Amino acid sequence: MSMHGTRTPLEITSVSNPRVKWLVDLRKRRTRESEGVALVEGFAELSLALESGVTPLQLFCCPGLVRDVDELRSLTERLARLGAEVVTLSEAPFRKASYREAPDGWLAVVRDPSRPLGDLELSDSPLVLVCEAVEKPGNLGAMLRTAEAVGVDAVISASAVADWGNPNVVRASKGTVFGVPVSTASTGDVIVWLRRQRLRVVVATPGTASVVSDLDLRGRLAVVVGAEHEGLSGRWLTAADDTASLPMFGRVNSLNVATSAAVVLYEAVRQRGLVG
Amino acid sequence: MSMHGTRTPLEITSVSNPRVKWLVDLRKRRTRESEGVALVEGFAELSLALESGVTPLQLFCCPGLVRDVDELRSLTERLARLGAEVVTLSEAPFRKASYREAPDGWLAVVRDPSRPLGDLELSDSPLVLVCEAVEKPGNLGAMLRTAEAVGVDAVISASAVADWGNPNVVRASKGTVFGVPVSTASTGDVIVWLRRQRLRVVVATPGTASVVSDLDLRGRLAVVVGAEHEGLSGRWLTAADDTASLPMFGRVNSLNVATSAAVVLYEAVRQRGLVG
Repeated sequence: MSMHGTRTPLEITSVSNPRVKWLVDLRKRRTRESEGVALVEGFAELSLALESGVTPLQLFCCPGLVRDVDELRSLTERLARLGAEVVTLSEAPFRKASYREAPDGWLAVVRDPSRPLGDLELSDSPLVLVCEAVEKPGNLGAMLRTAEAVGVDAVISASAVADWGNPNVVRASKGTVFGVPVSTASTGDVIVWLRRQRLRVVVATPGTASVVSDLDLRGRLAVVVGAEHEGLSGRWLTAADDTASLPMFGRVNSLNVATSAAVVLYEAVRQRGLVG
Repeated sequence: MSMHGTRTPLEITSVSNPRVKWLVDLRKRRTRESEGVALVEGFAELSLALESGVTPLQLFCCPGLVRDVDELRSLTERLARLGAEVVTLSEAPFRKASYREAPDGWLAVVRDPSRPLGDLELSDSPLVLVCEAVEKPGNLGAMLRTAEAVGVDAVISASAVADWGNPNVVRASKGTVFGVPVSTASTGDVIVWLRRQRLRVVVATPGTASVVSDLDLRGRLAVVVGAEHEGLSGRWLTAADDTASLPMFGRVNSLNVATSAAVVLYEAVRQRGLVG
């Protein structure tokens, strides 16, 4: 509160405003990573992030696009109290900043949920999911939802193609990207870290590997799944303590990567005797 | 072959050609269903359909957009031999007919892969997947890929939102929509059919249900999963012989519908002692 008892909230009406350009620039992974932020667009997505304890750094909203003015007032007041900078945009600059075809008037900049490998904290009997070079935000999002439900200690993206701060990953994750500890590192660094943490490395791969339900998936475990098209790089096959396959009886036999991850993780849950 | 020893292949150069309008109209589910056809767009998708034994009714191709002219010649000749009508389009009408932003010059009309419930043939110990009101083509495609790998007898869409002939379902299924027997019917009709076939109905639902790995999933079985947002309608809970839940330990606990289906189907595979 200033000496005068009020402050004028920032309102942007020009599409060439530097903040609008910055928001557009944040659609690039490189910019998000160098700024250490993620984008959360949409009321539903923002609500899920808030429920996960995220405090936006900035909230950009467009009164002309939001569905409900009471919602607008209560949420902007709540976020301002939490310390977020609230910025109002008129429709043209908001549409320029939005990455959606049909924006709903809500766009927030939050801290990048990703943390360094060294900052991950593991339980006594950790279960970690590693995904290498997975590209589709929908697959990363589905894996996060599974990881959250299963209660993994961390999800690590090795040699990432899409970053955790990608707004489509945030969206597809239904907010779970802010609830599950996530990290990104090169495949080499991830392998070194897994060894140092004494995690058994089970790599999901089709072919001649053991059927997953024949492997012991209890104890300190990392489950590794690979990219949609390429599968896992040779380094993972070398680093693996075990390789696991899912039984397949078809002719095409092309499981989705998020599907494979879920089946292996739930087999681990079954063997560990966990019940929800 | 006509008396004259050659026939002039049809070539369309106008965007207002009735065939182009028909192709645009086939983007509507209603039109596809009344014509009994599905759309397959893209070289990769078409190749997968052909590998599954599909013979297109019509092949529409655009020489100006295809990557490889040898591929163009060999594939159009092969399809013409198989009895498909081959139609060449110049770029403007092809782009109009295409439902993609970056078309690759290949678009085929094939018979709708869906068959009536009464035409489904079941094995002695059938495993059937039922999905109710699933909306996203990506989820239907991922479920088909799992169903194909697991070797289900059929996938049935109850009270369908997206049809099996939807080009995005075809695409996301990686061709498996042509390999797995698929059917569509109202929820009421599906329940009657399942009873008549003496299938035990296990409905996947969160909450107080038994944990899936505690249920006996051997024998004549139908696994039922519900829509992304709404979950299953009350009728399924009434019709269920058993309800099954997946253990969940998170706060958000929002599994993707294709993920849930895969975990339940692979638990059935494990219990049935099947190995790939």
